Amino acid sequence: MKIVTCIAPVNIAVIKYWGKRDNELILPINDSISSTLDANQMCAKTTIMASPNFLDNKLWLNGQEENFDQPRLKNCLKEIKKRIYTDESKENIVNWNIHICSENNFPTAAGLASSAAGYACLVFALAKLYNIEGDISGLARRGSGSACRSIYGGWVKWCKGEAADGSDSLAVQLAPPSHWADMRVIILVVNESRKKHSSTNAMKTSMSTSTLLTTRAETIVPARISDMEAAIKAKDFAKFADLTMRDSNQFHAICLDTYPPCFYLNEVSRSIIEFVHEYNDFKESTQVAYTYDAGPNACLYTLENNVSELLAVIDEVFPTNAAREEYIKGIPVKTIQLSQDVRQKFSSLKNSRDLLKYIIVTKVGEGPQMLSNTSEHLLNENGLPK
Amino acid sequence: MKIVTCIAPVNIAVIKYWGKRDNELILPINDSISSTLDANQMCAKTTIMASPNFLDNKLWLNGQEENFDQPRLKNCLKEIKKRIYTDESKENIVNWNIHICSENNFPTAAGLASSAAGYACLVFALAKLYNIEGDISGLARRGSGSACRSIYGGWVKWCKGEAADGSDSLAVQLAPPSHWADMRVIILVVNESRKKHSSTNAMKTSMSTSTLLTTRAETIVPARISDMEAAIKAKDFAKFADLTMRDSNQFHAICLDTYPPCFYLNEVSRSIIEFVHEYNDFKESTQVAYTYDAGPNACLYTLENNVSELLAVIDEVFPTNAAREEYIKGIPVKTIQLSQDVRQKFSSLKNSRDLLKYIIVTKVGEGPQMLSNTSEHLLNENGLPK
Repeated sequence: MKIVTCIAPVNIAVIKYWGKRDNELILPINDSISSTLDANQMCAKTTIMASPNFLDNKLWLNGQEENFDQPRLKNCLKEIKKRIYTDESKENIVNWNIHICSENNFPTAAGLASSAAGYACLVFALAKLYNIEGDISGLARRGSGSACRSIYGGWVKWCKGEAADGSDSLAVQLAPPSHWADMRVIILVVNESRKKHSSTNAMKTSMSTSTLLTTRAETIVPARISDMEAAIKAKDFAKFADLTMRDSNQFHAICLDTYPPCFYLNEVSRSIIEFVHEYNDFKESTQVAYTYDAGPNACLYTLENNVSELLAVIDEVFPTNAAREEYIKGIPVKTIQLSQDVRQKFSSLKNSRDLLKYIIVTKVGEGPQMLSNTSEHLLNENGLPK
Repeated sequence: MKIVTCIAPVNIAVIKYWGKRDNELILPINDSISSTLDANQMCAKTTIMASPNFLDNKLWLNGQEENFDQPRLKNCLKEIKKRIYTDESKENIVNWNIHICSENNFPTAAGLASSAAGYACLVFALAKLYNIEGDISGLARRGSGSACRSIYGGWVKWCKGEAADGSDSLAVQLAPPSHWADMRVIILVVNESRKKHSSTNAMKTSMSTSTLLTTRAETIVPARISDMEAAIKAKDFAKFADLTMRDSNQFHAICLDTYPPCFYLNEVSRSIIEFVHEYNDFKESTQVAYTYDAGPNACLYTLENNVSELLAVIDEVFPTNAAREEYIKGIPVKTIQLSQDVRQKFSSLKNSRDLLKYIIVTKVGEGPQMLSNTSEHLLNENGLPK
């Protein structure tokens, strides 16, 4: 038998992926760019065990046994098995059943791109299990499109590719995390009760009904991709922030141009957007950018030297009754007192209490890792969850 | 001295006007189509008195004296005076000062396109005062773009025109109110506390920042205008409703693609949108359409035979503590009891109480009118508000 345990990070797009040209192969209509977030704060962790003694394939997700017969999981496995170099020993392991156990170290209910980390982790672990070499981002893509970007650390571009078979629709690293070491990411998790639209279905509906999506994919995104690559390369925060916010807004505009329309931003999201623009106006330079995926939670990008003040102002504008140690998770942040004029400036923007569930402070981090310590395995020697 | 009193209606666009190619002349980047609403429910009323004894021009709006030196008012006056056929008697009146008194018969705070009715009324009354013949929609346009559509009753198209001087940017009637006599309009006035973006400024910002607006104006709207004209001509409600909802959503998508983004829809607006789609799904045919201007209030189009049931379902989904006679204004509606299955179907969509301020039931109506009865004048014999 063989067992591997891996972790894989979440990624947050700054130029968004929305719309597939091929639903089966998961091929996008435009390139996208993301940063990979530090796995110390948020990651998926997956243990895969292969054994000649297993009677069935089995799958556990976040403590629940799930049906193994899921089309995306089967797609990933099928593609992975095509990549196995068949010699005697590998042929054996290929025919063994496997047990997969996966969990996130952050609440999935928070709507924080958990499927990208999950599929990246699955594919990375399978690749380790079967000793697969070379780029595996195309394999991760078959599980969940944006999972391909979680295969690399730092700043990552998913090139949409041109080939009909999807062979060139792959992720590439634009820059490692060390390139822009003082970049910080602050996730504002919003209290939300509404039911969510599945993003797979919403994307399909956008493709068939939004009359603006083609212009976005064919004209606007290509220009933004090259501008964003230049902004990241030059570490030009103002340019980076401007593109990030505009592209988030345009993605949500496309959702609204979808029929029936699809709303992911709620009133709290809207208040955060208005706050970020007010904050940047107050600072007389762009210090913070927001971006939103298919949900109401805000992901803010800012530089390390702004984090303490920004969190203090957020605490003023979005007051909480929660204890700080429960409320602000992730990288420790020094608490500062705001000056009287800053407090006064933002007191008019003060919202009612507890609109935010909690805050995660994180940074740009590395790609997936294999964990060598056997204590990390999520499955015991019998292949059952510990 | 001479005195005239006129009323002019509100109009609600079903293909939206958003974006000017000339800010001074108020020339739009695309055609738009609206229905004119019955002045019995909502209208502006304006009295203008000209007298050789008036020392100054004066203006009262909704009971408050306002500065007469407003650029849009002056533009309208200047253009109107160019159109006066100068004989002896008219030359006299042209040189007299005027007193203008105008009011709306509905709350301006409700954010219901009051400037369109106001400027249409002003220009219509000035035209009567100075005996101006021919089309005056181009004059109304100089006050507020969409005011040009309130110059005609029924279904109206504002043709963007091609001329640089704006001479062909005029409104035309597509069909009189009698053409689609059973069309009803239900306005859901939403409780809203947020400050509003001025639509003039937001439109300018969209022009300079939205990268989707050109596609909308040049490609999407022209096709929708011809489809909408055909739907109105054929009284094809499903097609009309579909185009109306898609175009409202796209207008708000453009507002979101504006930078910084501009939000006019709030959570209640969003709930109404979701409700309308659920209601049409439940009825298995399109019975209701929503449209939203630069504010959170919903304007619903439906046919007369649906009004009673629709209002009963709205009462279920958006319950109120208000007394019915205060809450439902306008054309009287028969109250009906919903069947148990309809109630049950919509009980899951029930919102908290009092999200709506009140409801106006109205229909498509005639253009501006001059009132001949002297008791209607808003100014007394001395030219002061009664």
